[in-house]
Amino acid sequence: MPHITKKYNFIAEFFDIDSMGVMWHGNYVRYMEAARCRFLDEVGFSYLKMKEAGFALPVVKLDCKYIAPIEFNKQFCIEVELLEFECFFRLGYRFVNMNGARLCQAHTSQVAILLESKETCLYLPSEFRESLSAFINHAK
Amino acid sequence: MPHITKKYNFIAEFFDIDSMGVMWHGNYVRYMEAARCRFLDEVGFSYLKMKEAGFALPVVKLDCKYIAPIEFNKQFCIEVELLEFECFFRLGYRFVNMNGARLCQAHTSQVAILLESKETCLYLPSEFRESLSAFINHAK
Amino acid sequence: MPHITKKYNFIAEFFDIDSMGVMWHGNYVRYMEAARCRFLDEVGFSYLKMKEAGFALPVVKLDCKYIAPIEFNKQFCIEVELLEFECFFRLGYRFVNMNGARLCQAHTSQVAILLESKETCLYLPSEFRESLSAFINHAK
Amino acid sequence: MPHITKKYNFIAEFFDIDSMGVMWHGNYVRYMEAARCRFLDEVGFSYLKMKEAGFALPVVKLDCKYIAPIEFNKQFCIEVELLEFECFFRLGYRFVNMNGARLCQAHTSQVAILLESKETCLYLPSEFRESLSAFINHAK
Repeated sequence: MPHITKKYNFIAEFFDIDSMGVMWHGNYVRYMEAARCRFLDEVGFSYLKMKEAGFALPVVKLDCKYIAPIEFNKQFCIEVELLEFECFFRLGYRFVNMNGARLCQAHTSQVAILLESKETCLYLPSEFRESLSAFINHAK
Repeated sequence: MPHITKKYNFIAEFFDIDSMGVMWHGNYVRYMEAARCRFLDEVGFSYLKMKEAGFALPVVKLDCKYIAPIEFNKQFCIEVELLEFECFFRLGYRFVNMNGARLCQAHTSQVAILLESKETCLYLPSEFRESLSAFINHAK
Repeated sequence: MPHITKKYNFIAEFFDIDSMGVMWHGNYVRYMEAARCRFLDEVGFSYLKMKEAGFALPVVKLDCKYIAPIEFNKQFCIEVELLEFECFFRLGYRFVNMNGARLCQAHTSQVAILLESKETCLYLPSEFRESLSAFINHAK
Repeated sequence: MPHITKKYNFIAEFFDIDSMGVMWHGNYVRYMEAARCRFLDEVGFSYLKMKEAGFALPVVKLDCKYIAPIEFNKQFCIEVELLEFECFFRLGYRFVNMNGARLCQAHTSQVAILLESKETCLYLPSEFRESLSAFINHAK
């Protein structure tokens, strides 16, 4: 699979910061979700389109490695990398600061669930996989 | 209307605390929601029962006055007071510490919305008002 | 006082949306904080500068009136208006959608607290008031 | 190391639930933190005591496997298991419903950082390790 990454910038808000003066580790998951939604918008297959297509994409696995803290009002970038989209929709997230230094490395895995039957799909819906393939080809 | 109050205890969690070492003001709204749900459970008319009855109860007004800070791992109590339930479902919230000192004073107003038509009800559904009346009479 | 407003755009994220399909009312407070920080950055007096100047600016009052819901992935704008900066730092927030329709109207009041003595200031520190005056004059 | 587990009960709050009607995956991290704090309170070494002892315990690694969804107002239990406390303070979290069915499996790793020098400790402070050993021996 060709190497596809997209970058999204964010700012650490006051309510993200814990009593140690750094972003609380649980709040990184919010920014991963925000970056993932921007990515899916670029692909042309947002959660809203998935709903219309009759499926949802719940997160079934998550891992994060925290490398360096993020402070209040500091800008940071999340580089989203598409890792897999056959059975699982799998993304990598590389948080870097404005000098390119790594702050956090994370991954999510999502599966498709049919909204009507609540069944888990063995493969991601073909419509979604085709959109991702077209996105990759276009990005080349 | 007779004076009805119910008390619910909570603990300030690590993720509630901001970089000034006190509960972030926006997080009080979460505890107000938690206390309101406990109260509605006691009334016997949870959000789930409302859904079955075909309506929702969105918050249309909120005000908070912050009096003294809440620190990490400190227990606090929210005294929920039923203020009105005709057109609006109106509650008062008095946050106190374990010595009874006031920490915050707040109010919410909610209206009923029919789930099917999305219309706002001029009066709260009679089923809900009757449950609240019965709850008050029982508490007397 | 001259009429000063500044506008900031946001997007309703997936984690902002509750089970009724609209932004949970408590999450508006997060966006008010984000807008307030952008505004203070423009003034040139961020929370970090306040810390250096020896004071903090806790929210002591908050009110919100929710007018129309905000849905997932929808852009919205917060118009921040400076209302007062003598004893209280008071801001108004007008949430509007991309067609200019009002979604929410809110206010916050903040007081200055000296970091060392924990005393509440009767007046906002003169340094801060001067920055706000200069900002207003410059915006005219 | 002897097998030590402690159980803590929680309720899924309205603001935990996303537009798919289940707890948003990022909110599990909040409950893991709450359970961890209860556990450290039982050990007798809360974050407050750590601060007095001159260190903090930031999370450096996190992984979650989501097995079954958690719905609004449903009670659930987190079984916290102490896995390691030499270089890393490592805990396992098993979310189960009231029938004992597994909902989520997660782990966190934390390291000690000296508050003054900001240095990462190669080993957890001996004071902390001794408290954990005593806790294990007492639990046997």
